[in-house]
Amino acid sequence: MKIMIIGGVAAGMSAATRLRRLDEHAEIVVLERGEYVSYANCGLPYHIAGTIAEREKLLVASPEYLRQTFNLDLRLQHEVIAIDPQQKTVTIKTPQQPTPIQERYDKLLIAVGSQALQLPIPGSDLPQIHTVRTIPDVDQINQLLADGAGHAVVIGAGYIGLETIEALQQRGLTVELVELAKQVLPLFDHEMVSEVADLLQQHGVKLHLGASAQRFVPTNQQIAVHLSDGRQIKTDLVIMAVGVRPASQLAQTAGLTLGERGGIAVNQHLQTSDPAIYAAGDVIEVQDTVLQQPALIALAGPANRQGRIVAEHMLGRSSRYHSSQGTAIVKVHTTTCAMTGASEKSLQRAQRAYHKIYLHPNDHAGYYPDAQPMHLKLLFAPADGRILGAQIVGGAGVDKRIDVLATAIRAKMSVHDLTELELAYAPPYGSAKDPINMAGFLASNLLDGTVKFWYAEEYPAITEHALIVDVRNPDEYAAWHIPEAINLPLAELRTAIPSLKAQAEGRPIRLHCMVGMRSYIAYRILRQSGFTNVATLAGGALTLKAFGH
Amino acid sequence: MKIMIIGGVAAGMSAATRLRRLDEHAEIVVLERGEYVSYANCGLPYHIAGTIAEREKLLVASPEYLRQTFNLDLRLQHEVIAIDPQQKTVTIKTPQQPTPIQERYDKLLIAVGSQALQLPIPGSDLPQIHTVRTIPDVDQINQLLADGAGHAVVIGAGYIGLETIEALQQRGLTVELVELAKQVLPLFDHEMVSEVADLLQQHGVKLHLGASAQRFVPTNQQIAVHLSDGRQIKTDLVIMAVGVRPASQLAQTAGLTLGERGGIAVNQHLQTSDPAIYAAGDVIEVQDTVLQQPALIALAGPANRQGRIVAEHMLGRSSRYHSSQGTAIVKVHTTTCAMTGASEKSLQRAQRAYHKIYLHPNDHAGYYPDAQPMHLKLLFAPADGRILGAQIVGGAGVDKRIDVLATAIRAKMSVHDLTELELAYAPPYGSAKDPINMAGFLASNLLDGTVKFWYAEEYPAITEHALIVDVRNPDEYAAWHIPEAINLPLAELRTAIPSLKAQAEGRPIRLHCMVGMRSYIAYRILRQSGFTNVATLAGGALTLKAFGH
Repeated sequence: MKIMIIGGVAAGMSAATRLRRLDEHAEIVVLERGEYVSYANCGLPYHIAGTIAEREKLLVASPEYLRQTFNLDLRLQHEVIAIDPQQKTVTIKTPQQPTPIQERYDKLLIAVGSQALQLPIPGSDLPQIHTVRTIPDVDQINQLLADGAGHAVVIGAGYIGLETIEALQQRGLTVELVELAKQVLPLFDHEMVSEVADLLQQHGVKLHLGASAQRFVPTNQQIAVHLSDGRQIKTDLVIMAVGVRPASQLAQTAGLTLGERGGIAVNQHLQTSDPAIYAAGDVIEVQDTVLQQPALIALAGPANRQGRIVAEHMLGRSSRYHSSQGTAIVKVHTTTCAMTGASEKSLQRAQRAYHKIYLHPNDHAGYYPDAQPMHLKLLFAPADGRILGAQIVGGAGVDKRIDVLATAIRAKMSVHDLTELELAYAPPYGSAKDPINMAGFLASNLLDGTVKFWYAEEYPAITEHALIVDVRNPDEYAAWHIPEAINLPLAELRTAIPSLKAQAEGRPIRLHCMVGMRSYIAYRILRQSGFTNVATLAGGALTLKAFGH
Repeated sequence: MKIMIIGGVAAGMSAATRLRRLDEHAEIVVLERGEYVSYANCGLPYHIAGTIAEREKLLVASPEYLRQTFNLDLRLQHEVIAIDPQQKTVTIKTPQQPTPIQERYDKLLIAVGSQALQLPIPGSDLPQIHTVRTIPDVDQINQLLADGAGHAVVIGAGYIGLETIEALQQRGLTVELVELAKQVLPLFDHEMVSEVADLLQQHGVKLHLGASAQRFVPTNQQIAVHLSDGRQIKTDLVIMAVGVRPASQLAQTAGLTLGERGGIAVNQHLQTSDPAIYAAGDVIEVQDTVLQQPALIALAGPANRQGRIVAEHMLGRSSRYHSSQGTAIVKVHTTTCAMTGASEKSLQRAQRAYHKIYLHPNDHAGYYPDAQPMHLKLLFAPADGRILGAQIVGGAGVDKRIDVLATAIRAKMSVHDLTELELAYAPPYGSAKDPINMAGFLASNLLDGTVKFWYAEEYPAITEHALIVDVRNPDEYAAWHIPEAINLPLAELRTAIPSLKAQAEGRPIRLHCMVGMRSYIAYRILRQSGFTNVATLAGGALTLKAFGH
């Protein structure tokens, strides 16, 4: 059997090596358009930074190693320009051959990935404008830095954009960020990453949020970036990090079915509309684990696993790929931002019912040194508490908790299940009640009516006819408080109930504290003391501030 | 309703505060024998070390705070010496009152925890001999250190023992360790922690493994510890860390049913044989999540969650505690040792069928700086791949992976499910194929027959009539190899097949490399090239060495 694989990076090379391990005798041809296979895409910004100093380290496995160890017919600079599903042939173009040649396959895998989006605006083909997708991209950027580039504009505040900003700053450049959305990390809910915007500014990045580039104009050795808000930025280097789209044109031209979002449509075995042709990686449309609708998810982990599944199914195993949930993580200086499953905005777009909670736990026991706070948002189904998504921003321990929640989502767990998780506890690592357990407790309380929240985004409208009671201590109240709030420390609440009743005059009571713990206790006291319309601020003042108040 | 709680630390105080939040009007009495409530047991070794310098930090919540915020009738130095389930009374002894008094309850919670085991040997009541269970214990140890103790013997190499060794060394003491088992961390399988024993020795700890203390003899200001191997150690301080047993005498005397392992027997709602009396925390017997048999698991996390469930069920909710899986973690210098679920030895004791795999992945992408290796052992059911247990020893990222596996066990996941987990990947945090995915791949390969292992503990017997083929590179072979092994690097394997056939003369082939990756590829090549009796060493040379070879 002759198997051809178009694309030699994550999905393609995972498929090729798994194929060989399972079948010593198959003919396995890998056709890679570029000069590199099996390289570490995700390491590219760190190579710009110099964190990964040696270029060779990005080459996870050399062509020689792959040929020798896996007996692959590995061909670089071989671009497939056409597929004929009827004839089972691909048309290949190489620099060496003047005319494209055709070659037959028995089974084919399309693993050509995604391509960086280019803004269709004047000047976008100027030589100072680069994406960060391939090793040659990074070589060119490094050349510009070597030539003395001192200023850069990064367009797009997603994962690659933020990683590249930090990399360029480490190389000594002044960096400005242009992002169409009014927030950084647009896949996150905005309140979860407002502190990341602050952090970037503290590190000297000038932010242009809610702005877009309109055109690029060459000026001497520099280019001027003209923004939608009328500003112009003169710069030496522009990084385009505005997202990717599946490179599905080849498949489309071959008559294969695309999905509604533009990726190649595949079944659970990752077969396209032609069962002899498989597709895997960024180029396909997957099922979203939570929303159960088609999604484009360009991530290395799913691509690698899909490649493996294609190999198995090609060789007669019944392997299936079920879904992707968009688990992602990015380091911004010492802050970690991570998410898994649906966001609040994606749930709203899909018109799904959800509850949400916020909490701000430490990564480990507060009495052990160097505990670091994290901000955790959990989304879950009102009907049964099923976990829909999570976002965590903070320092140490963020990656651990997002992975636990990613596992819980995959296991279809509910928030009740989170209360029962038995996670590893010793003071340097966690708490007897881990942040994950705490999230489960809080969410369960909401579901069973033990607590009722008010939400920061409802302020000030929601509190207009209410009495806002700040149950923190007087010194905290003195340092900052909601203008309309009165101060009634938790410790004095029980004795103050009669006077509070008089003061409230039947108005709703809207409680809050710093993180939501004390005001939850206050909520329980008041609800059982004759107050019927009481609510406590989800996430407390920290979340209120994250909403810009 | 009057609820009495005996014991004011983890389970007891969790129950008390949850009770108050749920019921503002109940009478809640907490009877604590000692002078402290709600203190951080698990922080005690770190207070000896000075890592947690301020004693107050160990007091998670002060009595005043608890009384005020939760309106608790909190009584210190109140020891319950008897329970009368028929009369629904407890008998309380206090330092102030000459005669014990009786007091009535409607519902009772026994949360008295466990007590440190004492060795029943001569001299064990000498003043230099201490356990690390309570704040007064630590005060006394700190006093001995202040008085100039320079040498200590720690008896017991469990979590507390190892944490205390490190603490005493940080305080400048010379420390010797006596452990009855022939390994440290006896709950772990020995090969997983052999490097921890090495690490302790490198840090200057003298180990006496497989030895026990026979008697303690006072000599001048010191004591001589007489060991079973005939040695004597003169020391200033002995730490007894030989384990705990449930403090279930009070319950037993009251006629409540104990379980087969000596803890109080409870139902899923944590009610004892008297439905008005609940028990929670270290004092009870729980169901083991994996083995589904009674177990004693003295851990803070389960105790806290049990207290919460007791509170809810006392107040009419249907809350249940399902099981404990013994997830535990300990820091030994910069090494982390963690486990969850069953160990190989506990599976053998319970006569359960299991498969096992070993792997040695990095915590994050190898091309990103400071990647640290970990050693991972996964145990799973031969029938369906259900995960039974895991142990991980290494540096960064160990706690994350054990928590993911703890969650997977709780979700009844199989090793196939691990292959599908979508965990957070960026180069500083993980790999596109996370160690957890890799464990799933390897275990699935074993289950479906894609790989066949030989195991380090079978060496040398298993290889007696076999040809051992070391597929590492010649330089690796030259530096160290199994005496009987021939060297045939993976890259040359395909061309060497004819000569290998001649050399093997029909003997079994036993492959190995350093971590098991290359020899797995070699296994696949040979199995498909006419060799029928081939196996690859699980975990490679690293695991072989961990077994002492």
